[in-house]
Amino acid sequence: MTDTIDTSPGAVTRVPGFRAAAVACGLKTSGQPDLVLVACDRPATAAAMLTANAFKAAPVLYDGTLLSRSHKAIQIQAVVINAGNANACTGERGLRDAERMARLAESALGLPADSALVMSTGVIGHPMPMDKVEAGIRAAAAALDHLADGGAAAARAIMTTDLVPKEAFTQVQLGGVTVSIGGMIKGSGMIHPSLARADRLHATMLGLVVTDAAVPARVLAGMLERATAASFNHITVDGDTSTNDTVLLLASGQAGNDVAGDYTAFEAALTGVCVSLARQIARDGEGATRLVEIVVRGADGDVEAERAAKTVATSPLVKTAVFGADPNWGRVLAAIGRSGIRVEPARVSLWLGPVQLVAGGEPLDFDVEAARAALKLPEVRFVADLGLGTGQATVWTCDLSYKYVEINAEYHT
Amino acid sequence: MTDTIDTSPGAVTRVPGFRAAAVACGLKTSGQPDLVLVACDRPATAAAMLTANAFKAAPVLYDGTLLSRSHKAIQIQAVVINAGNANACTGERGLRDAERMARLAESALGLPADSALVMSTGVIGHPMPMDKVEAGIRAAAAALDHLADGGAAAARAIMTTDLVPKEAFTQVQLGGVTVSIGGMIKGSGMIHPSLARADRLHATMLGLVVTDAAVPARVLAGMLERATAASFNHITVDGDTSTNDTVLLLASGQAGNDVAGDYTAFEAALTGVCVSLARQIARDGEGATRLVEIVVRGADGDVEAERAAKTVATSPLVKTAVFGADPNWGRVLAAIGRSGIRVEPARVSLWLGPVQLVAGGEPLDFDVEAARAALKLPEVRFVADLGLGTGQATVWTCDLSYKYVEINAEYHT
Repeated sequence: MTDTIDTSPGAVTRVPGFRAAAVACGLKTSGQPDLVLVACDRPATAAAMLTANAFKAAPVLYDGTLLSRSHKAIQIQAVVINAGNANACTGERGLRDAERMARLAESALGLPADSALVMSTGVIGHPMPMDKVEAGIRAAAAALDHLADGGAAAARAIMTTDLVPKEAFTQVQLGGVTVSIGGMIKGSGMIHPSLARADRLHATMLGLVVTDAAVPARVLAGMLERATAASFNHITVDGDTSTNDTVLLLASGQAGNDVAGDYTAFEAALTGVCVSLARQIARDGEGATRLVEIVVRGADGDVEAERAAKTVATSPLVKTAVFGADPNWGRVLAAIGRSGIRVEPARVSLWLGPVQLVAGGEPLDFDVEAARAALKLPEVRFVADLGLGTGQATVWTCDLSYKYVEINAEYHT
Repeated sequence: MTDTIDTSPGAVTRVPGFRAAAVACGLKTSGQPDLVLVACDRPATAAAMLTANAFKAAPVLYDGTLLSRSHKAIQIQAVVINAGNANACTGERGLRDAERMARLAESALGLPADSALVMSTGVIGHPMPMDKVEAGIRAAAAALDHLADGGAAAARAIMTTDLVPKEAFTQVQLGGVTVSIGGMIKGSGMIHPSLARADRLHATMLGLVVTDAAVPARVLAGMLERATAASFNHITVDGDTSTNDTVLLLASGQAGNDVAGDYTAFEAALTGVCVSLARQIARDGEGATRLVEIVVRGADGDVEAERAAKTVATSPLVKTAVFGADPNWGRVLAAIGRSGIRVEPARVSLWLGPVQLVAGGEPLDFDVEAARAALKLPEVRFVADLGLGTGQATVWTCDLSYKYVEINAEYHT
């Protein structure tokens, strides 16, 4: 599926009818662009997946409330995104600031109330410097008038500790026409998304996926939920679910497809875009040198497989062993064994890339050099077969390096 | 309670009637002592708390089976402990090797069958080199004859990545006489004990606590379970529950106390020894520069408080912030928020040492330099009050440093 995904720059604004601008308003101490405005020529239906963290940041609460309140009538035409300040754990003032960011975006673009959504990422617990943000939103709105696109600049501006921008684009047939799907995402640390549907109100990963397809809001919400379950909710960098994780999906309808069509192929394409973005996050995890894919199969149900795979993916001992290219497979089994799922040791088999390490609970006399070589590839893959049932799950993570400690110990608030 | 605990060397053999010897038999590549034999002059009642990991190491299965099978009649007179090889994930051969270690110890000391227990720590998945182990057990048994004590040497020999030995000793009145309690423990990495009672069959932390008190086996098991719940099960270094975690408690009865006595003070003293040993483990966690105490109170029950405290204690973002002495308190709240417990953000208050950071969900304008100073002490303490109920828990951990990555990425199997 992912082989039809284009990850080159500018994905969001390759979707007809969407424009984006990025400006520097002083939120990042580096002076780099830190405020993005994405606008849509036509009112779009919207769906959101928001963090399940109990300390939801103000913009998460704002978006969640708006999308819950006006689920059917919602018409979104703008998204304002800032990096450098998360507006999280900022109390009552934070809530007012998030709402004001939406109002400023609507005002600057001449849009009606409740047509803008907000996403923020950065330091927690600091009040948003609204004078800078206000100037930034006005500048971005002015810049939008002169831009044909801006998607690539937007994908860079939303980065924090990310090393590279993350984008994905594809096209698919829907209701008699070709529609486009483009997405951008940021995230490198505090990555262990646990996203729930906004309309059930239940980061810091921020993702925006847009399409010119016409999709009813209810259909859109269901598709985003399922695509998230197969992508963003299956990645982890550090196990720390953020206060700000948000994925937004906007569908403008500009492509003019028949809305009564079959969405199967569209959903597959959407899922492909989401999986590509999710894998890009894991590969660019803080300090990462390798992408690590953990597959657990033969479990007593998919939920148990996911629990085991996530336990392996968050194990510091597994992640440091991968960084050190040491085929210390006992750490993988120990992590599965502590995950709380049903395990019968004598039925368990384990592979590292092409090398089988364990068969039916017995350690094999494997080729250590081949195993080390498999650990030095850009993508490392462990497959555990529990030999119990048909449950399976795939989780993506990265290794744990000195650089991870440097990024997070030298980062001062 | 812990102020009456003596942590000086030789704790186990300061208990009358217990002897210990440590020898080097070639399991550690360093050539340091790696095999310990502890013997008791009189048959002792025994209790054990064993890892809940599904991949229980062979010695864990051996001890658990023995103690379950013969719960009432069990009479232990020896414990053989090795470091350098965990005898975990070693299949059928491992089970035979663990049993053989017990038989060799019994034979070398002239003891009846089923009077020895076994503990192992080290690399997972490698067969135990039984020729070396056999020679080691014989040498240790011979050395026991010539020793008045040996507790200090034993506490060093069971170390793996530990930097310091960990011991605790106290005395208490029981049934009309003074009884002694002495313990030693090892553990630095793969530390997140989840211990359950051996007699319910449900590491790598290895602990041995001995006493000359006479205590019926059933009473002993209950006391060790409660003491473990307040100590070993409340520490974490890396979140990785081991395949080998074991805590053994032996009571020889040599002190001649009245077994019908009140065990309240004894249990308090035992708990004091266990808490001291547990804190020593957290302080000596792999790469640790500081002990970190996480207190969660005001939760909706003790179980919820413990869940929140453990989530904070295993958060790489919190642990690296402590290493960097950065008062990035948002990471603490984000961890509580992702722990899955009931939280009402507007009721939450947070302290770092003496510095209050958050009150009723609102960030305070605190003294940053005072907060940094609190993070640079040898013991760092966060207290979160959730403002919901009376549930509380204390968990001990350590910071996450470059050294942690070095130890675990440079360690080659």
